[in-house]
Amino acid sequence: MSMSDGGARPGRERLVVVGGDAAGMSAASQARRLKDPDALEIVAFERGHFTSFSACGIPYWVGGDVAERDQLIARTPEEHRERGIDLRLRTEVTELDVAGKRVRARDVDSGAESWTSYDRLVLATGARPVRPELPGIDAQGVHGVQTLDDGQALLDTLSRARGRRAVVVGAGYIGVEMAEALINRGYEVTVLNRGSEPMSTLDPDMGRLVHAAMEGLGITMVNDATVTKVLTGDDGWVRAVATEDAEYPADVVVLGIGVRPDTALARAAGLPLGAHGGLLTDRAMRVRGHDDIWAGGDCVEVLDLVSGQQRHIALGTHANKHGQVIGTNVGGGYATFPGVVGTAVSKVCDLEIARTGLREKDARRVGLRYEAVIIESTSRAGYYPGASPMTVKMLAERRTGRLLGVQIVGREGAAKRVDVAAVALTAGMTVEQMTALDLGYAPPFSPVWDPVLVAARKAATKVRGF
Amino acid sequence: MSMSDGGARPGRERLVVVGGDAAGMSAASQARRLKDPDALEIVAFERGHFTSFSACGIPYWVGGDVAERDQLIARTPEEHRERGIDLRLRTEVTELDVAGKRVRARDVDSGAESWTSYDRLVLATGARPVRPELPGIDAQGVHGVQTLDDGQALLDTLSRARGRRAVVVGAGYIGVEMAEALINRGYEVTVLNRGSEPMSTLDPDMGRLVHAAMEGLGITMVNDATVTKVLTGDDGWVRAVATEDAEYPADVVVLGIGVRPDTALARAAGLPLGAHGGLLTDRAMRVRGHDDIWAGGDCVEVLDLVSGQQRHIALGTHANKHGQVIGTNVGGGYATFPGVVGTAVSKVCDLEIARTGLREKDARRVGLRYEAVIIESTSRAGYYPGASPMTVKMLAERRTGRLLGVQIVGREGAAKRVDVAAVALTAGMTVEQMTALDLGYAPPFSPVWDPVLVAARKAATKVRGF
Repeated sequence: MSMSDGGARPGRERLVVVGGDAAGMSAASQARRLKDPDALEIVAFERGHFTSFSACGIPYWVGGDVAERDQLIARTPEEHRERGIDLRLRTEVTELDVAGKRVRARDVDSGAESWTSYDRLVLATGARPVRPELPGIDAQGVHGVQTLDDGQALLDTLSRARGRRAVVVGAGYIGVEMAEALINRGYEVTVLNRGSEPMSTLDPDMGRLVHAAMEGLGITMVNDATVTKVLTGDDGWVRAVATEDAEYPADVVVLGIGVRPDTALARAAGLPLGAHGGLLTDRAMRVRGHDDIWAGGDCVEVLDLVSGQQRHIALGTHANKHGQVIGTNVGGGYATFPGVVGTAVSKVCDLEIARTGLREKDARRVGLRYEAVIIESTSRAGYYPGASPMTVKMLAERRTGRLLGVQIVGREGAAKRVDVAAVALTAGMTVEQMTALDLGYAPPFSPVWDPVLVAARKAATKVRGF
Repeated sequence: MSMSDGGARPGRERLVVVGGDAAGMSAASQARRLKDPDALEIVAFERGHFTSFSACGIPYWVGGDVAERDQLIARTPEEHRERGIDLRLRTEVTELDVAGKRVRARDVDSGAESWTSYDRLVLATGARPVRPELPGIDAQGVHGVQTLDDGQALLDTLSRARGRRAVVVGAGYIGVEMAEALINRGYEVTVLNRGSEPMSTLDPDMGRLVHAAMEGLGITMVNDATVTKVLTGDDGWVRAVATEDAEYPADVVVLGIGVRPDTALARAAGLPLGAHGGLLTDRAMRVRGHDDIWAGGDCVEVLDLVSGQQRHIALGTHANKHGQVIGTNVGGGYATFPGVVGTAVSKVCDLEIARTGLREKDARRVGLRYEAVIIESTSRAGYYPGASPMTVKMLAERRTGRLLGVQIVGREGAAKRVDVAAVALTAGMTVEQMTALDLGYAPPFSPVWDPVLVAARKAATKVRGF
């Protein structure tokens, strides 16, 4: 142990947390709840200015639904410190010495470096947005939206952009949410989508509904678009985005292409990574083969309970659960994170989009044969004011009838219905069992057969063959 | 077989359905889907004017949210007849001869009676509203709201009532929904409630929230009120409702005290009835001990999957499921209705109310020890516009941690969250398992921990004891 880390007080252990967002600070907070400072010292390193912020909320801040940046901060650095967590902001961990049980951290502003030893370590280094190596990608006016600093930079650009033309690259969750944000700011929005339909987390037949709805909102959706470069004016500002086929004038460009696990530190230290580049953990969120190191949040891979395979899913709700599990275990309790079923919900203006479980291509990839059905229903009893149409797609395994996945596109009341399928997937229910589910019914909330049950009935009929 | 029934054609069976609403006509329709008229003759008797109507929609028609009575009719008599169902309206079945496999029906208008033989019989005789034997209960202006005729009669009274004072007797689902309807019609509404808090389907601590919200809507809620008589003017119209303690002036009175299975016919025929007066069936919805008789809808008792006991629950969504199961079995297929978990949702203006599973007193009655928790959360991320408060109560069994029940009171987005608990109850999940559920998260739809998960975490902590 070097002098620079101060050394842990005798009789107490030191927990070091790398990354001060959802997973890291949830872990720190939960560990603190279970162990007081005399028993556990907690040091948390965060390279940015903020802790515990809602990255998922950035599109709504940019779009103006959320007025102030600070509303997105669940817990400030001061609040963490008051709870006895030694939080070091603007401090990046640059090296992990597994054998020596220590990390090297660098003060981002001064450049000063020092080693800190740990008894237990939590890696919560998050994810990095994909930023393609394209000519012009670093032009002024081209923005990612991963951090609060990114959001502020984008808002600054919007406040001084010379025109009202926005190009969003990517048509996944971030892309469609940013399209909404920019529409709300009065921009003409073009979305450049590499795939055949937006929302590739849905099957194309459901993505097509999103496409149509986005066009209906005045968003120009360009599918099968391969971006080749960003065109820049003499002033260094973006002026257009070029694809293989065309040029799209742009006063501002938002990149929403997805994220990758940020595991450079772990990789250099020789920790086990999966096929998606994320850290591999056991059920207790302990890094495989390393009893003293836990990992959670956007930097890990998780078990998909439906396919049985590892996936990488960057989502705040998982990160919080991971942190809770890690903090419980580090604090001397016991908790596990069993895995995910792949639930995600989103919206573009009043269009709601939801999915859980496997798409058709996921099922094929893991060798599952399935029946797929699509039904139309409504959010409330058809006669009740505000009843809006909803399309539900459901996949069930052939022969067994086991539910494999659900996708929903609709208006108000559509998205959160996917939760019923998420629980049914977790429980391993068949679609036949689902037809009997005792879901809440009253005319303002549902038709007498809830849309999810209508889909289950159709899927069960198809599985049975009569 | 008497001459009057015409006799079934050789080689085809006759199905007789008693009761032309949700369960009966669902059964008839599904049987018809599976067997064509050459194989199965279907005769359905309905004593009223209508078929397949939404009784649950009546409060919204009375309140003006639904403009026309006919919007509440899912399928008209003509539509049923076009599908090859011999539907006889205004025809009441007055006797069931089980040994002779025939029913006696009376034309309500002419009084003419005749016997009709059956090969298979479906009893879907529904429920009757409780109408206490009180002096004055038959006064003009005192209304039930069970049938479309009831609804029309109430609307007629509203259109000519001399004043704007309404008294609703009963504070369950029908009572609170009728209170909303009458508020919407501009009435001063007083609700007389026998219990200590409204919505006795909730625990009193949750009912208290409904009480407060209803008072906030300008509804006068009188708890612990025992109605003793209805006071009538010289013109035969209601003028007040008296309780043991006070008199409440009324220009119109709505009775919403609950319903009982309408099983007089079955009782006279010696069919098996349960403790709640409902018909007892097996899982296929066949009346116990009677291979050729099925029963479903509001006239049967159902198995409560959480308590393991029989219950009577009058709800259109169950009736439709029963009908579907019966029709499948009668049509030569195979289906079962496993039971209910007791889910119900309702609203009073913008207040949403939901429950599933056991209340504290239900758990005690069946000898289950439990932990109960109550949490406050919001419908969306706290920073997202429209986030509204929500209270969730959760019961879990001691030691096992098995979920026993959930109650929710809140605003927009509160009620249907109970579906997650309904599926978890059906699957026999523990609250610890629930803490890991992969529910849909995005700021417009949920806090990063969904309110149901917040409750599950607190319940799991209490069960574990740390």
